[in-house]
Amino acid sequence: MFSKEQFAKLMDSTLLRPSATGEDIMHLCEEAARYHFATVMVFPFWLPLARRALQESDVKLASVIGFPFGMNGRSAKVFEARTAITNGAKEIDIVINIGALKSGERNILEDEIRELVDTSRMTGLTQDAKRTVLKFIIEAYYLTDDEKKLVCEIIKQAGADFIKTSTGTAPGGATVEDIRLIRGVVGSDLGVKAAGGIQTTAQAMEMLDAGASRIGTSSAAAIVDGYVPEDYLESAGRRRHS
Amino acid sequence: MFSKEQFAKLMDSTLLRPSATGEDIMHLCEEAARYHFATVMVFPFWLPLARRALQESDVKLASVIGFPFGMNGRSAKVFEARTAITNGAKEIDIVINIGALKSGERNILEDEIRELVDTSRMTGLTQDAKRTVLKFIIEAYYLTDDEKKLVCEIIKQAGADFIKTSTGTAPGGATVEDIRLIRGVVGSDLGVKAAGGIQTTAQAMEMLDAGASRIGTSSAAAIVDGYVPEDYLESAGRRRHS
Repeated sequence: MFSKEQFAKLMDSTLLRPSATGEDIMHLCEEAARYHFATVMVFPFWLPLARRALQESDVKLASVIGFPFGMNGRSAKVFEARTAITNGAKEIDIVINIGALKSGERNILEDEIRELVDTSRMTGLTQDAKRTVLKFIIEAYYLTDDEKKLVCEIIKQAGADFIKTSTGTAPGGATVEDIRLIRGVVGSDLGVKAAGGIQTTAQAMEMLDAGASRIGTSSAAAIVDGYVPEDYLESAGRRRHS
Repeated sequence: MFSKEQFAKLMDSTLLRPSATGEDIMHLCEEAARYHFATVMVFPFWLPLARRALQESDVKLASVIGFPFGMNGRSAKVFEARTAITNGAKEIDIVINIGALKSGERNILEDEIRELVDTSRMTGLTQDAKRTVLKFIIEAYYLTDDEKKLVCEIIKQAGADFIKTSTGTAPGGATVEDIRLIRGVVGSDLGVKAAGGIQTTAQAMEMLDAGASRIGTSSAAAIVDGYVPEDYLESAGRRRHS
C-alpha cells in the first residue's frame, strides 16, 4: 500500500490538448508542484514555459516524441528527443514505429529504439551526467499479443526505462490484461506505465495492482484526491477473497 | 463542372492510420496511379516506399508535418519538413501551432509559418528548382472565427499555397461554413483544402461548391467512383433554384 504522498509520486500529470494555452500549462505546473506528482507531461513547444514554472519544485519535466502516431521517422524522432532534452525534459515518452512493427520490419523498429536510447545517453551526459528517462509507447490497441511481446523484448534489450501502454488517442487505452502481459515480459527490470482513459482512483489502483509502476492521466489531481489508503487496503482484501 | 478526370485530380488520397503496413501503402499508391489523384498522402516514414511506388505515375507524393497536434515546436517542424522534401515530398501539410494561436502569441505562430515557407523554398531549389507546395492545417474545430481569420491572413501573407481546414483527428472536420470563411479571407490567391470526415461524393461536391479546391480523404476512390458529372449539373441547378 502507498501513502498519499507515494501515490501522488506515481502520477504523470498530462496535458496534451492542442488547444491548451500557456495559462493552462502554468495551472498544470502549479497544481503539480502542490501535489508533488512525478512529472508534468506537455508538448515539446511548452517545455521552456513549463521548465520555468517547475523550477522550484520536485516535479520533473516530461514531454512526448513522435506523438501520437510514431510515424514521423527515425531522424525526426531523434531530433525531437534532442531538442526536448536541451529544453529540460528529464523524461520523454516516445511512440514506437507502429507501422514497421505491423509490417514485420523488426530491424527498422529496433534500430530506431536503439538510436533513441543512445540519444538519451549522450545528450544527458553533456547536461547533468544523468540519462534522460525513456518510456516507449507501444499503442497496444493496434497490436496482437505476439507483437506486444516482441516489441517489449526489443525495448527491454535496448536499455530503455519504461514501457507505456497507450497514447490515449487510439480507440482503446490501458487495460489490466496489457499491464499483466507487459509486466510478464519485462519482469521487474523496467517500469510499466499505464495511460489512456485513466480518470478515476479505482482505475489507477487497478492498474497498479496489475503491475503498473506509473500512471499517465489528465485527471491526476482528482485521482489523488480520491485516494484513501485505508479504503484501498479494504478493497484489496475484498479482491483477494472474491 | 468537372470531368471525372478533373475531379480525381482534386483528391489527396490519404492513409494516416498508424497501423497501416507497407503493403497498405503500396495498394494506396497503385490505386492512386490508376485514378490519377492529385497526391498520395502518407506519414513521413513511408515516403521512400511511396516514392518508389509512384515513380511511373503522375501522382505527387505528399506528407504531413507536426501531425496532428502541431505542438512539437518550430525547429522540429522545420527538420521534419526538410527531411520530407529530401525524401521526395512535393506537397506537405503542416499543422499550425494551435496552442500559440489560442494563447494570443501571434509572433510565435507567424515566425514558425514563415520559416517553414522559407524552408520549402530553399530545399526545393536545391532539388529541382520548384518550391514544395505547402498547406497549413488550421484545425478549425478549435478556433473562433476571429482566430480562423487571423491565422488565414498570416498564412496568406507568408506566401504559403493552401489553407486546410482539419487534420481529421479533432472532434470535428471540414464544414461548408469554414470553407466559405477561409475563401472569404484568402480570395482566389490560395488553395483551400477541405479535409476531415469527407467520405462521400455528395460531401466532396458540397465542399467544392463552397470554394474548396482540394479534397483530403481516405475514401478518394469511392468518392470518384460515385461522381457522375451530369448528376452534379442537375443538383447544382436545383441548388441554384431552391
